[in-house]
Amino acid sequence: METYLSLVVKRSYPDLIIYAGEVTLGEKVRNKKDSKKRKLEKTRITQAACALLNSGGGVIVIQMANQSEQPERMGQDLETSLRNLIPSLDLQAFFETKQQEDKFYIFVKSWSSSPEDDSTKPRICSLGTSLYCRSLTSKVAMDSRDAFYFLKKKKAYIKCSPTDDRAPPAKIPRTMSQKSLESNPAFEIFQSKKLEYGQRLLFSESTSIEFKQFDTENAQKYMKDIIPEYISAFANTQGGYLFIGVDDKSIILGCPKDNVDPDSLKIVANEAISKLPVFHFCSSKDKNKVSYETRVIDVFQEGNLYSYLCVIKVEPFCCAVFSEAPISWMVDKEKGVYTLNTEEWVRMMVDVGPEAASNDLSRDFECQLSLSDSPPHCRPVYSKKGLEHKVDLQQHLFQVSPDCLKYTPESLWSELCSQHERLEDLVNQQIRSFSCGLLILSRSWAVDLNLEEKQEVICDALLIAQNSPPILYTILGEQDEQGQDYCTRTAFTLKQKLVNTGGYTGRVCVMTKVLCLSSQNNIETSGSSVSPIDYPSSYNLANIQEMQDLLQALVIVLLNFRSFLSDQLGCEILNLLTAQQYEILSKSLRKTRELFVHGLPGSGKTIIAMKIMEKIRNTFHCETDRILYICENQPLRDFIQ
Amino acid sequence: METYLSLVVKRSYPDLIIYAGEVTLGEKVRNKKDSKKRKLEKTRITQAACALLNSGGGVIVIQMANQSEQPERMGQDLETSLRNLIPSLDLQAFFETKQQEDKFYIFVKSWSSSPEDDSTKPRICSLGTSLYCRSLTSKVAMDSRDAFYFLKKKKAYIKCSPTDDRAPPAKIPRTMSQKSLESNPAFEIFQSKKLEYGQRLLFSESTSIEFKQFDTENAQKYMKDIIPEYISAFANTQGGYLFIGVDDKSIILGCPKDNVDPDSLKIVANEAISKLPVFHFCSSKDKNKVSYETRVIDVFQEGNLYSYLCVIKVEPFCCAVFSEAPISWMVDKEKGVYTLNTEEWVRMMVDVGPEAASNDLSRDFECQLSLSDSPPHCRPVYSKKGLEHKVDLQQHLFQVSPDCLKYTPESLWSELCSQHERLEDLVNQQIRSFSCGLLILSRSWAVDLNLEEKQEVICDALLIAQNSPPILYTILGEQDEQGQDYCTRTAFTLKQKLVNTGGYTGRVCVMTKVLCLSSQNNIETSGSSVSPIDYPSSYNLANIQEMQDLLQALVIVLLNFRSFLSDQLGCEILNLLTAQQYEILSKSLRKTRELFVHGLPGSGKTIIAMKIMEKIRNTFHCETDRILYICENQPLRDFIQ
Ligand SMILES: [Zn+2]
Ligand SMILES: [Zn+2]
Repeated sequence: METYLSLVVKRSYPDLIIYAGEVTLGEKVRNKKDSKKRKLEKTRITQAACALLNSGGGVIVIQMANQSEQPERMGQDLETSLRNLIPSLDLQAFFETKQQEDKFYIFVKSWSSSPEDDSTKPRICSLGTSLYCRSLTSKVAMDSRDAFYFLKKKKAYIKCSPTDDRAPPAKIPRTMSQKSLESNPAFEIFQSKKLEYGQRLLFSESTSIEFKQFDTENAQKYMKDIIPEYISAFANTQGGYLFIGVDDKSIILGCPKDNVDPDSLKIVANEAISKLPVFHFCSSKDKNKVSYETRVIDVFQEGNLYSYLCVIKVEPFCCAVFSEAPISWMVDKEKGVYTLNTEEWVRMMVDVGPEAASNDLSRDFECQLSLSDSPPHCRPVYSKKGLEHKVDLQQHLFQVSPDCLKYTPESLWSELCSQHERLEDLVNQQIRSFSCGLLILSRSWAVDLNLEEKQEVICDALLIAQNSPPILYTILGEQDEQGQDYCTRTAFTLKQKLVNTGGYTGRVCVMTKVLCLSSQNNIETSGSSVSPIDYPSSYNLANIQEMQDLLQALVIVLLNFRSFLSDQLGCEILNLLTAQQYEILSKSLRKTRELFVHGLPGSGKTIIAMKIMEKIRNTFHCETDRILYICENQPLRDFIQ
Repeated sequence: METYLSLVVKRSYPDLIIYAGEVTLGEKVRNKKDSKKRKLEKTRITQAACALLNSGGGVIVIQMANQSEQPERMGQDLETSLRNLIPSLDLQAFFETKQQEDKFYIFVKSWSSSPEDDSTKPRICSLGTSLYCRSLTSKVAMDSRDAFYFLKKKKAYIKCSPTDDRAPPAKIPRTMSQKSLESNPAFEIFQSKKLEYGQRLLFSESTSIEFKQFDTENAQKYMKDIIPEYISAFANTQGGYLFIGVDDKSIILGCPKDNVDPDSLKIVANEAISKLPVFHFCSSKDKNKVSYETRVIDVFQEGNLYSYLCVIKVEPFCCAVFSEAPISWMVDKEKGVYTLNTEEWVRMMVDVGPEAASNDLSRDFECQLSLSDSPPHCRPVYSKKGLEHKVDLQQHLFQVSPDCLKYTPESLWSELCSQHERLEDLVNQQIRSFSCGLLILSRSWAVDLNLEEKQEVICDALLIAQNSPPILYTILGEQDEQGQDYCTRTAFTLKQKLVNTGGYTGRVCVMTKVLCLSSQNNIETSGSSVSPIDYPSSYNLANIQEMQDLLQALVIVLLNFRSFLSDQLGCEILNLLTAQQYEILSKSLRKTRELFVHGLPGSGKTIIAMKIMEKIRNTFHCETDRILYICENQPLRDFIQ
């Protein structure tokens, strides 16, 4: 699709920034615009907004085509298309706009349903689901809430009847299963060899019967156009008959024989139906497609062949049939904005984690982050019962107290200060305007986040303070052109992980600042090539509660590891290190060249060893094959390979 | 509203039958009709359907204005209006249609959300909620799902902050609470004494700011019309400013001074706002209304007063503000079709029972019928832990076995047969075509259902059999003109209780048949005055599972009593008798003129005594003051008084 080309993902910001190009804004001005152009603009904004909602949040930057000194509303059509993306009316919880000179910014928060919703909302936003169903005598498009219910129900039914995967599952409500397609009055007509032009059928449209008239201009194109949605609707409901060539008074007209050849009608139908994307929750081995039969029946007038009636009999489908791929986007700094395929989309929609599935899990583990109310990319996080909770871990590692700004870990701070004379002044000067919060120091925040270290960096410091957004300071010895890049990359990864791993659902962007010990006046180097985005005050941490929420997300980011249960449960879940394990891991590798980890069996030595090797690789920039690992441990070896 | 007059609730059926008068049916015919008439017809159908969905289900009978030998669809506009009533696309689960001669029947099942929905759907159906909210820069009407979320959230917030009822509750998300109306840029304008015509405001429309222009034809009427929805939207979201007299480019125009007088503008605004219905979850003592302030500001042009700008500042509301009463109906055989008021509507919407509220309850009691997936009128039902479950009770009292038709209780059957010579033949003859099920005998089903007995009735027999709807047989000694009335009334009460007390969610109607021992050929007396309705086969009990579901609902109907916990928990909940208690109660009162109930304290003697007195009153037609009760028991005495 060409429209993609106009969405540019900017790399030089510590956030996902999508440049959506020139757009005319304002109610009246937009209404005057050529409708085609207006629609293209709307598509760009919608794609960008959908992608950001599904990918951790970010900013859409719009170049205002109509430069106006006055603040503008976006325009009703744009707002409506944003409203269609989100299964909630509380749009202001996800979108915030700002106009500045000739730019218009839409700040987009990551999608997540609120905890009060009891996991009743889909996990991702979509512009369209491409799922249809029959509702009385009509075909109706499911919106994303409808689709979410539909998919959840299908998934639940499949679980109830694991024995015979091919047949529609047993626990389907009576109205759905009872009436077989053979007992339907339409079956007789479906089986007939010839019919009479103008004959009136003895039944009308119903949930399982639809009449369409041929568009005689181009019968084949008409078939191709209407088939996907009707077949999806019948297959997703209770099956049925699509009559093409009957008017809505039940009178047989058919398609005049001169306009079309009966074989090609069949081919068109078969082609169109075979293209429909399907998704199986059942373990249907051959991934069977929609089961249907097409009949083209001769229609006679006064004894002569006059036209053809096309009837498609569609069986109810075990799982879900789409008219085309669902319409939803994600964004990635590398890949840019991309569409989800059907498989990915369904998995994102209904993924509810192992909570419901596994009783064992809830007996032995405590849920630290559930999928139901966290952003779309999150994996569920559990910790062993009896071990520290993420709240305990945050209290232990990153405690915030009112009216107090603490540097942590203290040992690292004194070590760094003793090594670098000017550091203390430099940092204090930056921090002095903040009165409540934490400055979390690290030799390298990049390494902590599994990124490659930059040798020249003395340390990184993450400020989590009240009335400020999180700020990442990178402290260099000498001025360095790559310093800002490093800081931006680290801050961006941190922000993405806070949302997509840590499950933080507030508005968040990690600001960057590069400091340099050698230069007298520390002018921020950030502004060099990039014009900074002025985030609204809602991106500041407003109170201790919000700081704690963010720090708990940080705990998950820093202490998570892939649970060994993942394979067993067939879905990736995360566990948390204990505070003790984390402290061993965060010891300086440079200082401690030899490290022995003692512990009882099952106490987590392997996990620690694996985490440390990961860290070694990032700290010393080792190629994977340049490190010699000696180990007698199976999972460790598997991991390394 | 006149339209009500055309909905007639028929009394002579054992179901809720609403006669909706003459309606034109069929897609094409309806489209040709005068749109006003079409709309009136639609309103009648919608009201009837809504009332039946909310009241236990029933049938809408339509006199087809256009008599056609051909089956017809209802018409797209009618289907759409039915679709708007139900927060689900699965309309065929609730509506089934049938055309017969010149009548068209819509069979309506009681509304209930399915158990898989996890109580995410409103408990009643509505055509409109009259609740509005702000969504970005627009006012949006909440549909019933949105309203359900909104009300649930408000209720939850109130619970979290029980200390200060007046202030908006504490746990409101940051975006809602943070921005005070005084820090809004609109506040300065709101406070100004005079403004300039054509002046451009330095802000645009937003979530908390709306601009409207005066309709100069009739400024006061215009104000009155727009105020309810905008005030509801602002008050339900985060408050805001409604500017009347500013165009959507932020330019001040006002209402020309000759067209209007400023005082009357204020009066109109105040009147309109004071009329808005509100609902409080909080215990706000004085039931305070929307907090707002209206300013009428002089607008000058070239030094002369030219027009007036009206600004209404609306504070966020603690609970819910409606633009008018919500639009929903119920139906009652006595009262006919009636609208719900705001208070009733909210209680029906969000009533979720004490499940979540009370931990004690879930420790000591087992939930037998939860509100979340049962029909709207149901009360929650609990039984003490350790006592029989409704499933056990059904197995104990009303067991169904495959390929076996049983008469129960057997003792009563033999007693009746020995008293009435021809009874056995008569009943066997009626029942012989059924092969699986139960015939449940009683001296009087009316008394069992708390209705008045009819002396002439020998016994009533309820047939619950496979491939049949439930049938209630009333057996008389002699022909009796009131026999059919008695049977219809009893069957109707039973059907209503099975749905509204027992929580049965399948399609159900209890058919009636009066049998007479004295007459040789038992021609059914039912058809005398009433043309019977031919229910579709979906009203038959299809299998043992459905029979068991119905019998479990019957257990609740027969064994329920108001729990003493009701007052404690502030909402009515039901408990179940034990099988033993029920057996004592169902002993014939005629035979056992003296009955001593022994038992340990707390074993339920009082409950039994209360139930028996109720029964005495119905059996012997006693006036309340004609019975002498001697008791030393407080609850018993309170109940009787
Ligand atoms: Zn399947
Ligand atoms: Zn209140």
